[in-house]
Amino acid sequence: MPTTPLKNDLFLRALRRQPVERTPVWLMRQAGRYLAEYRATRARAGNFLALCKTPELACEVTLQPLDRYDLDAAILFSDILTVPDAMGLGLHFVDNEGPAFHRPLREPADIARLPVPDPETELRYVMDAVRTIRAALAGRVPLIGFAGSPWTLATYMIEGRGSRDFVHAKRLRYDAPELLEQLIGTLTQATALYLAAQARAGADALMVFDTWGGVLDPDGFRRFSLAPMTALVARLAELAPGVPVILFSKGCAAHLPALAESGCAALGVDWTVSMAQARAAVAGRVALQGNLDPAALFAAPAAIRAQAARILAEYGRGSGHVFNLGHGIIQGTPPDHVAALVEAVRELSPAYQHGAPG
Amino acid sequence: MPTTPLKNDLFLRALRRQPVERTPVWLMRQAGRYLAEYRATRARAGNFLALCKTPELACEVTLQPLDRYDLDAAILFSDILTVPDAMGLGLHFVDNEGPAFHRPLREPADIARLPVPDPETELRYVMDAVRTIRAALAGRVPLIGFAGSPWTLATYMIEGRGSRDFVHAKRLRYDAPELLEQLIGTLTQATALYLAAQARAGADALMVFDTWGGVLDPDGFRRFSLAPMTALVARLAELAPGVPVILFSKGCAAHLPALAESGCAALGVDWTVSMAQARAAVAGRVALQGNLDPAALFAAPAAIRAQAARILAEYGRGSGHVFNLGHGIIQGTPPDHVAALVEAVRELSPAYQHGAPG
Repeated sequence: MPTTPLKNDLFLRALRRQPVERTPVWLMRQAGRYLAEYRATRARAGNFLALCKTPELACEVTLQPLDRYDLDAAILFSDILTVPDAMGLGLHFVDNEGPAFHRPLREPADIARLPVPDPETELRYVMDAVRTIRAALAGRVPLIGFAGSPWTLATYMIEGRGSRDFVHAKRLRYDAPELLEQLIGTLTQATALYLAAQARAGADALMVFDTWGGVLDPDGFRRFSLAPMTALVARLAELAPGVPVILFSKGCAAHLPALAESGCAALGVDWTVSMAQARAAVAGRVALQGNLDPAALFAAPAAIRAQAARILAEYGRGSGHVFNLGHGIIQGTPPDHVAALVEAVRELSPAYQHGAPG
Repeated sequence: MPTTPLKNDLFLRALRRQPVERTPVWLMRQAGRYLAEYRATRARAGNFLALCKTPELACEVTLQPLDRYDLDAAILFSDILTVPDAMGLGLHFVDNEGPAFHRPLREPADIARLPVPDPETELRYVMDAVRTIRAALAGRVPLIGFAGSPWTLATYMIEGRGSRDFVHAKRLRYDAPELLEQLIGTLTQATALYLAAQARAGADALMVFDTWGGVLDPDGFRRFSLAPMTALVARLAELAPGVPVILFSKGCAAHLPALAESGCAALGVDWTVSMAQARAAVAGRVALQGNLDPAALFAAPAAIRAQAARILAEYGRGSGHVFNLGHGIIQGTPPDHVAALVEAVRELSPAYQHGAPG
């Protein structure tokens, strides 16, 4: 991949805890249904999966929020379930319900025979999207690649769809932990190759979404969420050296100290913990990304600005903070409220950064 | 209320951290759809709300799990939304969706005109259920009364139904916190009267379900969940002196030290924290109730027994532990697995209790 020099590398500097002039900001699910232009492109694509699988359209929606807002990073438009889909489970989306698999894992033999997909063949459309976006960005801001965490992918593959109670995945966790470890081992291997390929295709940073880490008991979290993510980070250090990795375990504020030992560059932080507590918990070992309640974007711009000010103050002085939400933008969020947030972070954050009067 | 002497007061002694011979056990939602006899009674009632509103049938389903299992407490069969219903919001249940209100709160004026219901008139059917159950129990085990926490009730009243993102309630939290405090103040007053009336009708202990405390940011939790529950506990100390109160904030393990300062007798503990950590966090100020993952009941009896053994060992020696799940029994739980759990707690817990070889 030929490297275009980045015009704005604030995000990468913050991930490395290097000096920055202001706190970089991007928002999880910044390309999405709250934007009219996204809904128009999705309508042209026909459905969500077609949008993910058509590199030109995935590129189009990836860039849409950057044209509206002064964001400091782009994130590949895709879905965490592309990997299980490439393993043969048959991903599809059910209206008003979300993702589902035609062939969920039901028998131990289903786990044993899972293939590890080759990213440049079975997931070629994702790599093409990364290359297309990277070229279209032309160095404007860094591009983030991503994948689901092994545990999070396992829950969907076992349940066959989204779940509230995760009874099938948990039954495996309690009844046959070795079998669950086998599945998660395969997923860790597949995810490492997938993320490394995204880095080769042009992703400047890699993020792992551990959406369901928080539904596990503490032992289960260590064994089935944290341990495989730690192995994944170690493998990526070999396969994609120098590319920063962000881990985001939603609902896992209590596990921040353990997550900070994983070798990752940064941790995502949801809104259930203050940035001051989170920063103390990781003790300077990693950068932090977060932590505004996405529902706060439904409040008036003045209240949004006050919350941004609070989070910046709670993180305090110095680099290592990437402003973000504590979870993805909620459908129905007023787009001008997102503008108010981005503007507030740009205006208020220099006071906490390099060059600010001490 | 004439007092029948209790034949089994293990549960009340554990709440007071007095010596017990074994760890008492009951299970949240122990009367429910996983039991065929419950489904039969509910079918006779016609629907869930009719079941709640018919004291004889509510009594029948309350006693069903006690006839199957050696449980150490009964809990009133009812719903947390009876109080908003009595305030005039029009509770009903939508198939496959859950509770909803015909008249959710939409305007500040809706909040200002909310009445505080008189429990013995507007909620008479609940008090009659408590009296009926208490008489039917005839001192077999203690009876637990309950209510939703002010914040949890507020979310349903504002959203109009269950929610994933709580955007209406959170908008009020960020845009008009004083208005939210006014609503929560009214709910605290109503809930105190409601729980005190349950105690007068015969409830031996009172539990507050703060199901949605965990969706708040830390400041929001302190202001809108913890502070009103603390006020509620203080009011109950006047209105129902000597009746132990259990607070259960789901997803709030990080707030256990603060919750332990509320004046309550015991705290519910979900499964995201070990009982050893939870016990250390509350430092002997309160008893603890929990903390098995309800999904673990889908595992084989041997695995359930191993999890029960782990939790008992993690709590360790001494009183102050009420064994329970970390959330309600999940629909579809095999009833014989519940039997295996109760049996395991009865067999394994004496080793940690009074009289056990030190």
